[in-house]
Amino acid sequence: MNSNKKIMLSGVKPTGRPHIGNYFGAMRQFVELQETFGGYVFIPDLHALITLQDKEQLKQNIIDVVIDYLAIGLDPKKVTFFKQSDVSAHTELAWIFNCMTTMPYLMRAHAYKDAEAKNKEVNVGLFDYPILMAADILLYGPDVVPVGADQKQHVEIARDTAEKFNRIFGETFKLPKEYIVENVKVVPGTDGQKMSKSYKNTIPLFATDEEIKKAVMSIPTDSKGIEEAKDPTTDKVFALHALFAGTDELTALSERYTKGGIGYKESKEILIKNISAFIKPLREKRERIAMDVDNVLEILEEGGRRAKAVADAKMDEVREKIGVKLY
Amino acid sequence: MNSNKKIMLSGVKPTGRPHIGNYFGAMRQFVELQETFGGYVFIPDLHALITLQDKEQLKQNIIDVVIDYLAIGLDPKKVTFFKQSDVSAHTELAWIFNCMTTMPYLMRAHAYKDAEAKNKEVNVGLFDYPILMAADILLYGPDVVPVGADQKQHVEIARDTAEKFNRIFGETFKLPKEYIVENVKVVPGTDGQKMSKSYKNTIPLFATDEEIKKAVMSIPTDSKGIEEAKDPTTDKVFALHALFAGTDELTALSERYTKGGIGYKESKEILIKNISAFIKPLREKRERIAMDVDNVLEILEEGGRRAKAVADAKMDEVREKIGVKLY
Repeated sequence: MNSNKKIMLSGVKPTGRPHIGNYFGAMRQFVELQETFGGYVFIPDLHALITLQDKEQLKQNIIDVVIDYLAIGLDPKKVTFFKQSDVSAHTELAWIFNCMTTMPYLMRAHAYKDAEAKNKEVNVGLFDYPILMAADILLYGPDVVPVGADQKQHVEIARDTAEKFNRIFGETFKLPKEYIVENVKVVPGTDGQKMSKSYKNTIPLFATDEEIKKAVMSIPTDSKGIEEAKDPTTDKVFALHALFAGTDELTALSERYTKGGIGYKESKEILIKNISAFIKPLREKRERIAMDVDNVLEILEEGGRRAKAVADAKMDEVREKIGVKLY
Repeated sequence: MNSNKKIMLSGVKPTGRPHIGNYFGAMRQFVELQETFGGYVFIPDLHALITLQDKEQLKQNIIDVVIDYLAIGLDPKKVTFFKQSDVSAHTELAWIFNCMTTMPYLMRAHAYKDAEAKNKEVNVGLFDYPILMAADILLYGPDVVPVGADQKQHVEIARDTAEKFNRIFGETFKLPKEYIVENVKVVPGTDGQKMSKSYKNTIPLFATDEEIKKAVMSIPTDSKGIEEAKDPTTDKVFALHALFAGTDELTALSERYTKGGIGYKESKEILIKNISAFIKPLREKRERIAMDVDNVLEILEEGGRRAKAVADAKMDEVREKIGVKLY
């Protein structure tokens, strides 16, 4: 790692198979940031427990997310890639922060307010996780925390918490800044809505050709014949061309749509070809990586060791500051 | 430790100088239990942070409570004596339990309800500490948890939490039972109310002769002369004789009170003599122990190592059960 680079920290959730909406919306940007920043990418597996209480599923999801990110190019030599549960300092520091955070303050957090509005049986993990996230961040003193615009509040809570600790116990934590990830594309799903697992309109990022074909073929179109003029701005197939066709090909397709002369069948076949061409190298790389799970786990374990060394040093400083370090 | 003994676990708070009310009300019993049970006595220094956010004060309180308990006879060969912050598994497990505990459940805990009724700015540590306490307990699989009758709910919450975890992830935690400490004396303070720091009516457990004299002399009496008959059941000096006089001496004092012939000055002088005789060996033992703080810290550190070995083994099992143990 180049020590002149600024430090970033971001979390990648172990939530199961990613789709191309996840890729263009966030995953790709995290990987691109490793060229600008050094730092940390971690898997918040202890956060995941809030909603996923299934041993085999969580285990598989963690391994999968490591393979996914390695496949799209995350380089464990450029960033420290680890999982939260390998570094006990995260929960230790979260507890200490709990003792400096008031209930009304934490009740104003978006995720809790939203969940509470829907369901009275919210768990304490969901309520407390902005504080665990503050610990996740502050242990590593990152300069920037790349987040989507809707995640800004988490970095604000981390910053408030750092300020509170520094005020009570003396200067200890660097105040983190959010880094709003630019160039985020909202990817349309096969039904035209935003691509999202909850809408069942996704194309998996590492889809097989069969899956790509099935997904694209399911895109609803109107009943216009081949020669009829079509509106590229409203067609759901064309919306996906915009992501996968080259500039010239996209211009040509747009002209053929407007003039007439291309049927939806042909348009879908072009889309399938383009998506396949895009996905194939990623999928093949993922398959190669997945052949050697031991190596994948070694990468994660080594990342955990590196992260732990940094986090433990900071926790030692925290223990000294709060008065529990006696030897 | 005798492995045939049942295992107990109890916490002793680092809250500053103990008084004789603390001693007869709880401290003495904890030490007596080491003859019946093996197990663990720990200092919840991370709980203490909820109310004490002062480095030097917390540090001093921790060292003092270790010395206090060694002075009254806690034997680190019979029980493992350690502090919470030396074992990261406590906060790790507490986080995992947070993810299985609903907000409404935890909001019914007494301490939170009481604090909330008085003050809207309760901190998250106070709210969440029954869960940290559940982790404190369950990591060590104790058979019994000695508590005062007012602390029963904490053991109930630990038991509920163990049941919930076992149900979701398979049998992991032994269900703990409370052990209601018997033979607890309510010690009257120098004003006749229950002895308590908040009433400023205490006699310190390790008081100097000067402090004992000052405290006893401050006990209010009525204005009866030496020869007048006095009521031993209402006199505040006599209430303390009941703790410190031998049986025969107490009978004799009671007769002199009832018949007349003893003045309050003499009664107080007898009380001072008796309290001094009781406290002197404890105070001297405490002074000897306090001369070698390094040794005190070594005892605590060694206890921490022993506790950590047990707790880490249990956490390893927990990590396996929830699905985050990959290597």
